Amino acid sequence: MHFFKKISESKSFDLHKGVKVKVLTTSNDESMTAIQLEIEPGSLMPTHKHFEEQFGFIKEGKLRMWIGDEEETLETGDFYYVPPDKEHGSSTVGDKKCVKIDVFYPRRKDYLEMIEKREQL
Amino acid sequence: MHFFKKISESKSFDLHKGVKVKVLTTSNDESMTAIQLEIEPGSLMPTHKHFEEQFGFIKEGKLRMWIGDEEETLETGDFYYVPPDKEHGSSTVGDKKCVKIDVFYPRRKDYLEMIEKREQL
Repeated sequence: MHFFKKISESKSFDLHKGVKVKVLTTSNDESMTAIQLEIEPGSLMPTHKHFEEQFGFIKEGKLRMWIGDEEETLETGDFYYVPPDKEHGSSTVGDKKCVKIDVFYPRRKDYLEMIEKREQL
Repeated sequence: MHFFKKISESKSFDLHKGVKVKVLTTSNDESMTAIQLEIEPGSLMPTHKHFEEQFGFIKEGKLRMWIGDEEETLETGDFYYVPPDKEHGSSTVGDKKCVKIDVFYPRRKDYLEMIEKREQL
């Protein structure tokens, strides 16, 4: 197992138009899944929910985000927390790409399967 | 519950000389604990271990880090993963402060107790 992870070595897939997921933790030994999510200017992460808890951090850019009945414009360095099964979504603000880090517990089996499928192509 | 979290509103304590912990998730509803760790230039996070898994990201500065038998110099944007009970530690490189984000599962009861104790002072 390699404990140190470079974004350049991560495996990625397109989740929606203009939304790329780079998966940083891919071992079945890991309880959490960590990703870098890259949202192109003018793109949207539609409202959705999942049973996994989510902690996130804005690495670069600006993001309008809604979680349950709260809504905020987040900037680089801001954090958020999404409880299990809470509806949430986001869209970029302005003409810059937004890059954020998300960590989920338990791990996102759907994302890991997506990576696996891409490798079989 | 407030889903959006600003580092300026976080609760903090000194973990070691030159090492400050700012806790971003403090609710007992949260399975994960997220912190910002600030390490002053020339300071050390001594080798230690804990049963909680840890995922981390370098927000600013440079860090020499060791996890088990691996060792790396990490820069802004680099990631790492610490399995349960794996010994690890770090020290700053150069004359700049290092700021990193750490997310633990399950939550760090020791950190939450430390915050609670400080509030009672």
